[in-house]
Amino acid sequence: MKFRYHLVILLAFFIVGISRPTQGQKTTVTASAQTPLQRVQAYRKAHETTLMNEYWQFLAIPNVSADSVNIRRNAAFILQMMQQRGIPAQLLDGTRPGITPAVFGEVRVPGATKTLTFYAHYDGQPVNPKQWAEGLEPFKPVFITAPVEQGGTIVTTYKAGEFIDPSWRLAGRGSADDKAGVMTILNAYDALVKSNIKLTANLKFFFEGEEEVGSTHLGDIFQKHQDKLKSDLWIIADGPRHVSGKKLVQFGVRGDVNLYLTVFGPKRPLHSGNYGNWAPNPAQRLVSLLASMKDDEGRVLIEGFYDDVTPLTDREKQAMAAVPNMEAALKKELGIARPDGGGASFMDLMMIPTLNINGLQSANVGAMAGNIIPTKAEAVLDLRMVRGNEVSRQIERVKDHIRSRGYHIIDREPTDAERQQHPKLIMIKAATGYNAQRTSMDLPIAQEVIKAVQTTSADPIVLLPSAGGSLPLYLFEKVLKANVVSVPVVNYDNNQHAENENVKVQYLWEGIDMMAAIMLIR
Amino acid sequence: MKFRYHLVILLAFFIVGISRPTQGQKTTVTASAQTPLQRVQAYRKAHETTLMNEYWQFLAIPNVSADSVNIRRNAAFILQMMQQRGIPAQLLDGTRPGITPAVFGEVRVPGATKTLTFYAHYDGQPVNPKQWAEGLEPFKPVFITAPVEQGGTIVTTYKAGEFIDPSWRLAGRGSADDKAGVMTILNAYDALVKSNIKLTANLKFFFEGEEEVGSTHLGDIFQKHQDKLKSDLWIIADGPRHVSGKKLVQFGVRGDVNLYLTVFGPKRPLHSGNYGNWAPNPAQRLVSLLASMKDDEGRVLIEGFYDDVTPLTDREKQAMAAVPNMEAALKKELGIARPDGGGASFMDLMMIPTLNINGLQSANVGAMAGNIIPTKAEAVLDLRMVRGNEVSRQIERVKDHIRSRGYHIIDREPTDAERQQHPKLIMIKAATGYNAQRTSMDLPIAQEVIKAVQTTSADPIVLLPSAGGSLPLYLFEKVLKANVVSVPVVNYDNNQHAENENVKVQYLWEGIDMMAAIMLIR
Repeated sequence: MKFRYHLVILLAFFIVGISRPTQGQKTTVTASAQTPLQRVQAYRKAHETTLMNEYWQFLAIPNVSADSVNIRRNAAFILQMMQQRGIPAQLLDGTRPGITPAVFGEVRVPGATKTLTFYAHYDGQPVNPKQWAEGLEPFKPVFITAPVEQGGTIVTTYKAGEFIDPSWRLAGRGSADDKAGVMTILNAYDALVKSNIKLTANLKFFFEGEEEVGSTHLGDIFQKHQDKLKSDLWIIADGPRHVSGKKLVQFGVRGDVNLYLTVFGPKRPLHSGNYGNWAPNPAQRLVSLLASMKDDEGRVLIEGFYDDVTPLTDREKQAMAAVPNMEAALKKELGIARPDGGGASFMDLMMIPTLNINGLQSANVGAMAGNIIPTKAEAVLDLRMVRGNEVSRQIERVKDHIRSRGYHIIDREPTDAERQQHPKLIMIKAATGYNAQRTSMDLPIAQEVIKAVQTTSADPIVLLPSAGGSLPLYLFEKVLKANVVSVPVVNYDNNQHAENENVKVQYLWEGIDMMAAIMLIR
Repeated sequence: MKFRYHLVILLAFFIVGISRPTQGQKTTVTASAQTPLQRVQAYRKAHETTLMNEYWQFLAIPNVSADSVNIRRNAAFILQMMQQRGIPAQLLDGTRPGITPAVFGEVRVPGATKTLTFYAHYDGQPVNPKQWAEGLEPFKPVFITAPVEQGGTIVTTYKAGEFIDPSWRLAGRGSADDKAGVMTILNAYDALVKSNIKLTANLKFFFEGEEEVGSTHLGDIFQKHQDKLKSDLWIIADGPRHVSGKKLVQFGVRGDVNLYLTVFGPKRPLHSGNYGNWAPNPAQRLVSLLASMKDDEGRVLIEGFYDDVTPLTDREKQAMAAVPNMEAALKKELGIARPDGGGASFMDLMMIPTLNINGLQSANVGAMAGNIIPTKAEAVLDLRMVRGNEVSRQIERVKDHIRSRGYHIIDREPTDAERQQHPKLIMIKAATGYNAQRTSMDLPIAQEVIKAVQTTSADPIVLLPSAGGSLPLYLFEKVLKANVVSVPVVNYDNNQHAENENVKVQYLWEGIDMMAAIMLIR
């Protein structure tokens, strides 16, 4: 790992040296032989324990979206980080009170012709501490030697200020998704400034606090602060790098919406012997309904589910063809004998909509299970959408399917009269969702980003027309009329959204490199 | 309610007077005008606050089967109850160490020609305190005015020693299932003795501590103590009275076994966007599998599932035909628009085997849900069996069905090699189960029990060839060569096995009547 790291630096030196012949000279004040990237790296190396201590403190602040008190503590911490770096910063609210504010900062550079805005989000997915491995807690970050699922153990010997092995991972909610974005963006800026590298573009920073709950008020914040948020390009630091470990620029994301389903059974839990065969079991009803939605290969059977998909352009298809095929390695790592998709490639499957069961629950399992007919059965569905899909239309298709199975749909607990009237009753609640987004790879500024990220990598970087994951990037197009690309920072095996979330230290350092390189776009 | 109660007493006096003309005179020492039943009731009325206080203390001892320390505290409490009532008592263990003992007592009556053994169990189903209504805790009994599901509230004004409204319910784990059995049996005996009513049969008492975990060691205890446990009839005080509220004698039970299913997905939880459509979702697999097991009417589709059922005799069919039809009332109370069974009657459906989903779980639902592909999905199945079914054969049919759906079955967590090899992997663990049991209604002693219970009721009592519920009664036939009938004590709407379990006070008092009447069989 160490050898490879040095190789990257040497190659980066070579590449930057060729592609930016004048810049090295212009910005060289104290270290004439070094490229900006080398100087950023040197600065980071000299300060990495300080950076890590600050990040550690940041991760220790609980950031579940619904926890409004702690969410604001996170915002305050970021404000402080920005102020310490000399970035004029403020909280941005929306038009309605009580929303989680975004943290915004702006650095104007005399003579700059372009404005770049760097985005990350500081809220995290809900946590169930019981599901985390022993010794790991969502909001008590620790270093681990490797993912716990691969036998990693906690580094108990580490003391603040000591050398941090870049192969370690820092475990905690938000360590990867997406405080890593905040950390690398602000430290990239700081490294540039502290290394006396001349900035060439106006820089803005926007850190959202409601991403994991569907960015409910992002559009509202955008509306209210349209002028302040004007820029030529938004750079999104979120999501994982390519599974191959390669650096990645993404030009789109899937849209996303959650559906919460509850099928109702008897009004009280019934003894499974005394009522078994007679009282309908809501868990049986739910499994039958969910089973009807997909075939054995994972293809969605809901009518019209794939109808609206906009086909990829030729350039997008070419980019897709160049993406390294990681399926064999993934299958092995994840313990998958045969993927879904009936033989379609991993990348092709990311370019079509999904219907995923996020969770299922009815009564209890394991030692807590009783011999009962439960009163209800719940499922949470995740629908990913691609360019061409429209959230409400996609939801309506799912509902139509459910109706076609004989269900009466309500959006709250049923009344007694409804229970008497409808043999099949289901409550469906939809979270706020959003559509997919895709930026053209042909834009000159998109090509600039590709070049900048490539300077930090000896390997060819990966270019993706769309991520599998989601962000409400359609809002950037729709409200701000802005271009947007994603430059993910973290390792793909980060357990984001789940227990034992972690970020590889090396990826944080490389994230600082990438963000710094992009900040120097002219 | 009060009027009806007095009517029952008056009618009972009349019936007892006719059916036992000599007994009233023989046993009348201090109250010549009273029947034994009236004297038992008078004794109970005079002492009911004391009885209730003792029961309250009994319910406060946690009795989840797996909680071995507290289970033994329950056994000790019963021992004490028996000693206070002058019943020589002891713990019965099996041949293996560490099992939960049964509590046994014996009263020999000179000249008695029959020996009756009264059975109840003192362990309870697992509890999830979070699922109980506000103010109710599994092991802090309180009176409630009605079931919480019907708007009942906690009686906060009650003080020990005050009048207890018989329409109240006592809420707590075990209040109905089945400490009520222990309570009514021992207090019936006490009431007979304290009222100076001459006993006519040898009486034995047997209280099991492992019923809710499948009576794992009951056969072992029976084997070891065969001689001690000899008797002409076992009377089982467990399960609910008929849904109509009528008293009930049952001649059989369904057999029962639990299956624990775990379907495996990726080795670590995956982001549903970054892997959606490609990584198989174990929740989707599980719902598909479970859906394949039953049709929309609740009929089990597993091959041969209904093949072994022994048909009912003519007498059993007659008894079934006389059972009050409560379906309309049940549908209304439980909020069921259309029952399962495709039009078959409630009672007929209790006479065939079941396959019930007790619980489902995969990752989280509601606010805890994350956008992930879970690592596993679990279900607990409950199989009820009837006369003719055999536990291992029924389990094998379910497994054959699962295999026919392409699954490789293991009985522990999969190895990496197994994950690589088998696209569909399922772990199945079977709990210890037992077969159904059915006693002939033609036996003279069975007829005696029917007569005795009828003396306590103005309404015709209900006779059932088999309960829908289960007890390991086949062991009584197989190991002890004993006859066995069930005389349930508690209200049917007791939430047994679930949250907010409760027993109606009036049913405890009537349970004492029934047990006392049976103890006087000659």
